[in-house]
Amino acid sequence: MTYSELQNRMQQISDLHAALALLSWDQETYMPSQAASYRSRQVALLSSLAHEQFVAPEVGEALRALRKEDLDEDQKVNIQRLTEDYEKEVKLSAEFVKKRSENISKTFQAWVQSREKNDWSAFAEALKPLVELKREEAEIRGYDHHPYDALLDLYDPGSNMAYIDPLFSELKEGLLDITKNLEPKYSEDYRFLSAFVPAEVQWEWGVNILKDIGYDFERGRQDKSHHPFTITLSPGDIRITTRIDERDFSNMLWSSIHEGGHALYEQGLPKQLHFGMPMSEAAGLSVHESQSRFWENHIGRSYSFWEAYYPSLQKKYGGEFSNIQLDTFYRAINQVQPNLVRTEADELHYHLHIMIRYEIEKELIKGTIEVDDIKNLWNQKYSDYLGLEVPSDKEGVLQDVHWAHGSFGYFPTYTLGSLMAAQIMQQLESEHSNISMALRQKEFSVIRDWLEQNIWKWGRSFDLHSLCQRMTGKELEVSPFLSYSRQKFGAIYHIK
Amino acid sequence: MTYSELQNRMQQISDLHAALALLSWDQETYMPSQAASYRSRQVALLSSLAHEQFVAPEVGEALRALRKEDLDEDQKVNIQRLTEDYEKEVKLSAEFVKKRSENISKTFQAWVQSREKNDWSAFAEALKPLVELKREEAEIRGYDHHPYDALLDLYDPGSNMAYIDPLFSELKEGLLDITKNLEPKYSEDYRFLSAFVPAEVQWEWGVNILKDIGYDFERGRQDKSHHPFTITLSPGDIRITTRIDERDFSNMLWSSIHEGGHALYEQGLPKQLHFGMPMSEAAGLSVHESQSRFWENHIGRSYSFWEAYYPSLQKKYGGEFSNIQLDTFYRAINQVQPNLVRTEADELHYHLHIMIRYEIEKELIKGTIEVDDIKNLWNQKYSDYLGLEVPSDKEGVLQDVHWAHGSFGYFPTYTLGSLMAAQIMQQLESEHSNISMALRQKEFSVIRDWLEQNIWKWGRSFDLHSLCQRMTGKELEVSPFLSYSRQKFGAIYHIK
Repeated sequence: MTYSELQNRMQQISDLHAALALLSWDQETYMPSQAASYRSRQVALLSSLAHEQFVAPEVGEALRALRKEDLDEDQKVNIQRLTEDYEKEVKLSAEFVKKRSENISKTFQAWVQSREKNDWSAFAEALKPLVELKREEAEIRGYDHHPYDALLDLYDPGSNMAYIDPLFSELKEGLLDITKNLEPKYSEDYRFLSAFVPAEVQWEWGVNILKDIGYDFERGRQDKSHHPFTITLSPGDIRITTRIDERDFSNMLWSSIHEGGHALYEQGLPKQLHFGMPMSEAAGLSVHESQSRFWENHIGRSYSFWEAYYPSLQKKYGGEFSNIQLDTFYRAINQVQPNLVRTEADELHYHLHIMIRYEIEKELIKGTIEVDDIKNLWNQKYSDYLGLEVPSDKEGVLQDVHWAHGSFGYFPTYTLGSLMAAQIMQQLESEHSNISMALRQKEFSVIRDWLEQNIWKWGRSFDLHSLCQRMTGKELEVSPFLSYSRQKFGAIYHIK
Repeated sequence: MTYSELQNRMQQISDLHAALALLSWDQETYMPSQAASYRSRQVALLSSLAHEQFVAPEVGEALRALRKEDLDEDQKVNIQRLTEDYEKEVKLSAEFVKKRSENISKTFQAWVQSREKNDWSAFAEALKPLVELKREEAEIRGYDHHPYDALLDLYDPGSNMAYIDPLFSELKEGLLDITKNLEPKYSEDYRFLSAFVPAEVQWEWGVNILKDIGYDFERGRQDKSHHPFTITLSPGDIRITTRIDERDFSNMLWSSIHEGGHALYEQGLPKQLHFGMPMSEAAGLSVHESQSRFWENHIGRSYSFWEAYYPSLQKKYGGEFSNIQLDTFYRAINQVQPNLVRTEADELHYHLHIMIRYEIEKELIKGTIEVDDIKNLWNQKYSDYLGLEVPSDKEGVLQDVHWAHGSFGYFPTYTLGSLMAAQIMQQLESEHSNISMALRQKEFSVIRDWLEQNIWKWGRSFDLHSLCQRMTGKELEVSPFLSYSRQKFGAIYHIK
């Protein structure tokens, strides 16, 4: 197989993944209820077809041969990453892939039902075989020190506990130091946050912001789903979803900007040039999350951004907003308060939610705890870290879909991404003194250009660690995030 | 392969077809514009995978072996139909299937662009290679008398020109005899037909009718598309689309009821029991069309139906409708008038549109005319049969998507279906004296039950001809349609 024959093969696999992506996009947006069991079959079948086509011996041979050829830099990256992917995937049998896919469908259905009934124990039974499969998967994939490392590596190549543990421990200490010492500076009424704003008004407003920040609707679209997500079908088709609560406009707003950040990255990758190849793909989920968090928190929740947008929000949303000053609005959308639900957490407490999950996953995959232990541990940690009693499984251990999807090892990428986002912002501001001004003028191209040059155009050339090094000359660090937090929230609160 | 192993294989192929169906549903409803070229690749790939899995030698061997085994009646039907399908498909190489799929995508894109530019000659160039491919396909598939027969058979197993020609010639004579001799009985103002009715009001009204006639929204959904269609993804997922014109409420109304008729058939087939097998499928496109035409014309355009629904339409749509009497409304929605666009034609002229296309297709596939001859022939026939000058390609030879899709042989099923629909109505009324009463009470279950017993439950057990025989003791005939037409339109018009 020549390089270009290999690329053809990879493009075919990419076409299969496009169909898979559409099947799951549809499942989360428009699929009728009675279609669920058939949908699981379809996904399982296409997953194993894609797997088979990739791990075929001729692909392995081609990769071995091409490593010795004289290729350009991008091609070398593609062959190198494909080789790594191949070595990971070839360890899994088609049978295992199919079994895992079927198992995930079942567990997901059980999660939907258990969550509705607020019944952890029913879900726990369904989760047990999936946890067994994930432990088995960790063994099959292999690891140096801890089975959880094998799963972490799937979402963020190169990540492992030895890398994450010290970062998380520094972050936890720093966060608890801030969150436990916050005292209100202002006594204000923030009830306008739950003012009624009609769904179609919110929708239009969100779409306008997406267009402003540069999301290309000719190569994508936005729909509604229970859990917002970004999904790539092809270089010309990168979709996002959002959700709308007519009594909480901020729900849709942050989710649209967040997914918009993911989508800008996907639309900014060299997807056409390297169609089917790793250079057309994101560097990993932590880097992906750095993009969404960057746009959501560092842009969308910034004061300068609202200097630009608040007048038009007042005009569009009218009613209670007309009497609210920008400063009050800004403080309201940046309130810090421990809460039970991760997706509704503020920028600081959010990471305590993540650490709880990370700590549980490590032990679960290792086998030092079992599924039946999760709920008590969960509730204990919410009490310890956030000072909250968990009143129901729905707002507790059943809140996230990730475990039902078999996505153990996924959660830490949210926090690593946030750390990277803060580091990006720090670097960006050190290179451009006028970022606040640009935001006040809704001028996002300087930011997009910087991201394009430093992150997007590299595809999978570099992992999280090397990207940070190249971008800032430093490893991924906790301090930019902590100093951003102290500065931002110190202006809103007293920090004792 | 045992019977049940074969069924497993067919279910897998069915899962591939489900993904294909979703890809095309999405293409017509939500796909962003820049996704088109990648979508074509995805469809071509899955089409050839499905083809390969079906024509594999072990399937042929299994079919041969199973024909000799002791199977129940349904199983025998399944093996018999699969054998016929297999023998048709095995003649096509994977290469041919892929080439055809890619060619269709290209021609379809060209049609969309040419139609926008109102430019037949640009489309003609794109159509030529596809016509060549379809001629080649006819030769590969084989035929007794005429190459067009090989294509007719794809949409309606067992249909051919020897069967259709005499029916069409009798129908043409009868239709021209009616349409050329109509004279208005009433002098009324029908401009209320273009009253403004907001899209969401129309939508809700249409959904209510769909629920009333029995369409199951838990196993389906309705969306908007340029051309309305019905598509089956799986036994639990049978979708329809409609279109809305705020200045022509009837556009959405008929399309919803029409597609609803197709969907009732699909939802009524024994799909779960025979998942993956021919017994879960429709008897052919003419029988399919008999269902949509039956609901659209014999139910939806009937006086009794509007006795039931008109008061609520007046209430919902308000405005100009409040002053219009039921009788006037009924005559307005049943106006007979030659027009240029097939999909907007009345119940009578509609079939002249079909015959024009049928006559052109026969010659085109045979090679007695070429693509460059189509436009003149088209315009000449519209003048001869409908007395109309064609002012633009858009309203003329570029109006239909069928040729761009390579669907030569498809059009006649619309007319055969209409004939069958009239025969169904005649038979239904002879067995149940109270059909009008049922309609006046929005009681559709007696009709659904009859269709279920006489048509739906048989899957592909019988073709159009045998179904008619079993149902009415007679072949498919023209006379029920003509006598229905004379009676219905004789009440609205003078017929000289």
